[in-house]
Amino acid sequence: MAVHRFVPTQFHNVLGTREPVLRVSDGDTVVTFTLDAGGCDQANVERAPKPNPMTGPFFVEGAEPGDALIVQIQRMTPTRGTGWTYSSLAPNVVEPEILPQLRERDRVDWTIDPHAGTVRLVDPPIAIADLVLPLRPMIGCFGVAPGMDQAISTTTSGRHGGNMDFRGFEPGAIACFPVFEPGALFFLGDGHACQGDGEIVGTGIETSFEIEFTVRLKKNAKHGWPRGENASEIFTIGNARPLDQALQHATTEMLRWLGDSFGLDTVSASHLLGQTVSYDIGNVFNPAYTVVCRIAKTWLRKPQTSLGWLG
Amino acid sequence: MAVHRFVPTQFHNVLGTREPVLRVSDGDTVVTFTLDAGGCDQANVERAPKPNPMTGPFFVEGAEPGDALIVQIQRMTPTRGTGWTYSSLAPNVVEPEILPQLRERDRVDWTIDPHAGTVRLVDPPIAIADLVLPLRPMIGCFGVAPGMDQAISTTTSGRHGGNMDFRGFEPGAIACFPVFEPGALFFLGDGHACQGDGEIVGTGIETSFEIEFTVRLKKNAKHGWPRGENASEIFTIGNARPLDQALQHATTEMLRWLGDSFGLDTVSASHLLGQTVSYDIGNVFNPAYTVVCRIAKTWLRKPQTSLGWLG
Amino acid sequence: MAVHRFVPTQFHNVLGTREPVLRVSDGDTVVTFTLDAGGCDQANVERAPKPNPMTGPFFVEGAEPGDALIVQIQRMTPTRGTGWTYSSLAPNVVEPEILPQLRERDRVDWTIDPHAGTVRLVDPPIAIADLVLPLRPMIGCFGVAPGMDQAISTTTSGRHGGNMDFRGFEPGAIACFPVFEPGALFFLGDGHACQGDGEIVGTGIETSFEIEFTVRLKKNAKHGWPRGENASEIFTIGNARPLDQALQHATTEMLRWLGDSFGLDTVSASHLLGQTVSYDIGNVFNPAYTVVCRIAKTWLRKPQTSLGWLG
Amino acid sequence: MAVHRFVPTQFHNVLGTREPVLRVSDGDTVVTFTLDAGGCDQANVERAPKPNPMTGPFFVEGAEPGDALIVQIQRMTPTRGTGWTYSSLAPNVVEPEILPQLRERDRVDWTIDPHAGTVRLVDPPIAIADLVLPLRPMIGCFGVAPGMDQAISTTTSGRHGGNMDFRGFEPGAIACFPVFEPGALFFLGDGHACQGDGEIVGTGIETSFEIEFTVRLKKNAKHGWPRGENASEIFTIGNARPLDQALQHATTEMLRWLGDSFGLDTVSASHLLGQTVSYDIGNVFNPAYTVVCRIAKTWLRKPQTSLGWLG
Repeated sequence: MAVHRFVPTQFHNVLGTREPVLRVSDGDTVVTFTLDAGGCDQANVERAPKPNPMTGPFFVEGAEPGDALIVQIQRMTPTRGTGWTYSSLAPNVVEPEILPQLRERDRVDWTIDPHAGTVRLVDPPIAIADLVLPLRPMIGCFGVAPGMDQAISTTTSGRHGGNMDFRGFEPGAIACFPVFEPGALFFLGDGHACQGDGEIVGTGIETSFEIEFTVRLKKNAKHGWPRGENASEIFTIGNARPLDQALQHATTEMLRWLGDSFGLDTVSASHLLGQTVSYDIGNVFNPAYTVVCRIAKTWLRKPQTSLGWLG
Repeated sequence: MAVHRFVPTQFHNVLGTREPVLRVSDGDTVVTFTLDAGGCDQANVERAPKPNPMTGPFFVEGAEPGDALIVQIQRMTPTRGTGWTYSSLAPNVVEPEILPQLRERDRVDWTIDPHAGTVRLVDPPIAIADLVLPLRPMIGCFGVAPGMDQAISTTTSGRHGGNMDFRGFEPGAIACFPVFEPGALFFLGDGHACQGDGEIVGTGIETSFEIEFTVRLKKNAKHGWPRGENASEIFTIGNARPLDQALQHATTEMLRWLGDSFGLDTVSASHLLGQTVSYDIGNVFNPAYTVVCRIAKTWLRKPQTSLGWLG
Repeated sequence: MAVHRFVPTQFHNVLGTREPVLRVSDGDTVVTFTLDAGGCDQANVERAPKPNPMTGPFFVEGAEPGDALIVQIQRMTPTRGTGWTYSSLAPNVVEPEILPQLRERDRVDWTIDPHAGTVRLVDPPIAIADLVLPLRPMIGCFGVAPGMDQAISTTTSGRHGGNMDFRGFEPGAIACFPVFEPGALFFLGDGHACQGDGEIVGTGIETSFEIEFTVRLKKNAKHGWPRGENASEIFTIGNARPLDQALQHATTEMLRWLGDSFGLDTVSASHLLGQTVSYDIGNVFNPAYTVVCRIAKTWLRKPQTSLGWLG
Repeated sequence: MAVHRFVPTQFHNVLGTREPVLRVSDGDTVVTFTLDAGGCDQANVERAPKPNPMTGPFFVEGAEPGDALIVQIQRMTPTRGTGWTYSSLAPNVVEPEILPQLRERDRVDWTIDPHAGTVRLVDPPIAIADLVLPLRPMIGCFGVAPGMDQAISTTTSGRHGGNMDFRGFEPGAIACFPVFEPGALFFLGDGHACQGDGEIVGTGIETSFEIEFTVRLKKNAKHGWPRGENASEIFTIGNARPLDQALQHATTEMLRWLGDSFGLDTVSASHLLGQTVSYDIGNVFNPAYTVVCRIAKTWLRKPQTSLGWLG
């Protein structure tokens, strides 16, 4: 249960089979740094090319294909006082007919105040001059090597995780990725100081972070898609286009989970999901969109394993 | 500001230009009954053919094409102690590959206990023998005549509303429909005692209701899609397939609203939406899917009109 | 086997349960006129509002729900020397990012020369000053009343046919629609002098026609979607969004047809379709998109019925 | 203009930055072998793991990012007398509701007779006992390294080509890929003896081939997506889900081509495309679907460059 402090010096724009930067064990905690989506560090110096340069990969001892890697996000601390977004909605989230009415998408800056717990535009349009939003850090892109010799761009996502931009991946939340390569090869980056559902301007408030996370292993997990947990819910994630297909993946993974860990046959699971499920939209901007399927823990009995809800 | 008590005797399986059953005025309240989705009334007697037979239409004096009809859902009281659902997930919400694993979709019964505020399966599978869910009434299908001489089935939805199955349409919420025909011609029905996001078993808990609602008019509204309001949020609705297109409609309508009622130019609206928007999925079962675009009122200044947030 | 000459005086912008304009019998031929998509007649005089005003409905004696109405397109003769199109691609057929590069969509005129069998722009841009295209008439929108009390706009399509804009619906081709209402109630209009796949500028070359067609009945057909036939192929049609779903409907209907009329079990049909199927795209402009699933007659044995391939 | 005879000994299941197996020059011809989709060679011996193991990559001297690699398919000769397919439609090409009616997807064998130019099932179901189809070889998967450090699975496709399963990629056709890496790094494999549109059973008739192809370079091409040419048409290709988006990419690339090589402004291109475009569906089975946008050469003036239509 070691705590590793790791200062990255190289970064990757893919999740793939790359040389590990650190070997950690089941239960270990890592404290490290991430660049912003554009490759800039705590001093706003460009340290790697965009898009979404990743810190890692971390090799988790004992992880084998078929296992699942559990990543608990312990803490996310912004390492600088500024972030940036784009100034206009992404073209794919509005009706094509109104696109000519939208402005060019410029990059604009935000101030991050960790003490006040707020973010605000540096130079806001007059109509939102007073807008002060809460600082709410989250991880935009993280996951594991996708296996089969692939190296998948950090612009997109899949069964291995990647650029999901789900704002539920915040401190306190737990993510769980299927393992496709020995050691899992965990990557992370693309932190946001704030973000709405869908990442519909094409960014959250992009900034650099110090992140602390703990890894655990679930052996022979046979998961198909990322899963997760927060204080009140368990959730599954599907990444695909259109959203309809992402939703199919997420719902199918939840059906599998309800069967494997909670003993619900498909009829029981259908009743529970039918009357209580919630869906969230992670992103509708990246090449693969992200849908999250959520069930409140209150409707389930916690598995009596060392991994708890994820057991 | 009259209160009308209306007992329906005929029902419609479309929203279209049909003979009004009652004429009401801006500000009036109506107390009426709705059949369940299968056409059964408070005595569980079939009174109309499925699907989703509607009560109405109500002619609202003064409503003209281009106006908007505001409908406040004041109360929904179940009129019988039972409801029903299907026993298996709809085929379109899971990966096609696993469909052969799902059981046939049978109709099963639920008990509704208004005093306890609960619903439970009459004959639950053993794995969910103890499942007791909250009674949470909502309207599955309501809206106005779609204009252009159309009569659109209550299985689907569009700009005129219809079968949206959004669980936010509950007592206390306000819906707002574009008006396409003189008098608006408002229909309602398909009440659910409970429902998860997406209506993914193809039903909520279908039952009959007594519903009380109040109508108001917004003249020259020029809305494109349904809008709504609850205690903490304003929202817009898009109905289409795939979900991606429903989301485009909802987002575009919100952009329009933020401009027209709150004075936000597209850049200001993009900043606000980008960092604070939430999306809900109404249904992913009907021919047209439903996406809801939500913004917390806390980020906006309430319009100083008699119609408040919807003004 | 009468031949009816019918001059329409009223038109419909929906396919629905409307008063029949003429009663015809199985085997009869009708010669009638259609307005262009904008409602103009042979003299370019506006006779009905857009969109796509329909001639009809024709009541076919003996047609009952569950039957199929077979419509052979015998002839299409343009009734005036001009047609029109829009001057720019529809916004939904290009990448959203390039939309700002497209020009406004203006209405432009074409000359139709039936003797030369050609169409050309009246005032072509210099880059296509010499472009002369073949006159190739087709029906954009036709079909039957959709049943269930619906009246569906001529902008869209469904199981009942409608605005499919498939350029295979040309003289010599046969269309076949499921019947949902007594008498079938057949409508037609929206003729095009020429059109590419997808109707991607939002129009074909829109003009008025004299059309001659023959109707036959297939009793107890139990078809799910439109079907058709030309000299070399049989085909089925799905109408939905996205194209993926339209393709599912068309393929499923072909699977049904191969089983019912040609005795192919699903494995045999899969082999045949897998190695020989062709797909066409009818339209990618209307609310519902259209996909056509085609099989060459050479791979099938013609049913020994009076209805031939459609038997 | 050398002719290289290359016998592969290693294979890749991704298109990525891998060690070149041969360096060739602009204008050179290569004669080589490809395994079938399951990794079997001319002796039906498994030589590499599935899916779609690729021969290559071939390094083309002088190819730089921003160029385009032109690949002329000169010849495809099956190297064994057997191929295989799956026995049932893929689950995603039919309505979800009918999936339970489809049989399990088994692998079945076909006989290939190059002299007769035919293929037939080894053990056909009785209903198609006499079915003899034409031998019509095509390349299922080919393309270049996708750049940005990615290695993309041969199950899918993108801007770099990949598993497009377009039956127009047959002997005589020319393909053209954007170059993302120095040397382009060209891969090929997954040959089919026959295939319908869409590859809707999940395979063509999978077999091993000897393939002869010639490479040429177009410098500073700035293409966005694959292009191609056959005797009568030029075409562009989009790879994405849903089909709607693949069609957007293909149409946009054609618009670019019509502007860059044929001098058509967007209005002129819209007129031409609107009235003459054809769309083909490459595959609707792989993670990314494929749409082909085609224009007959007869409507265009051949560019006076050494690369002809692709110039």
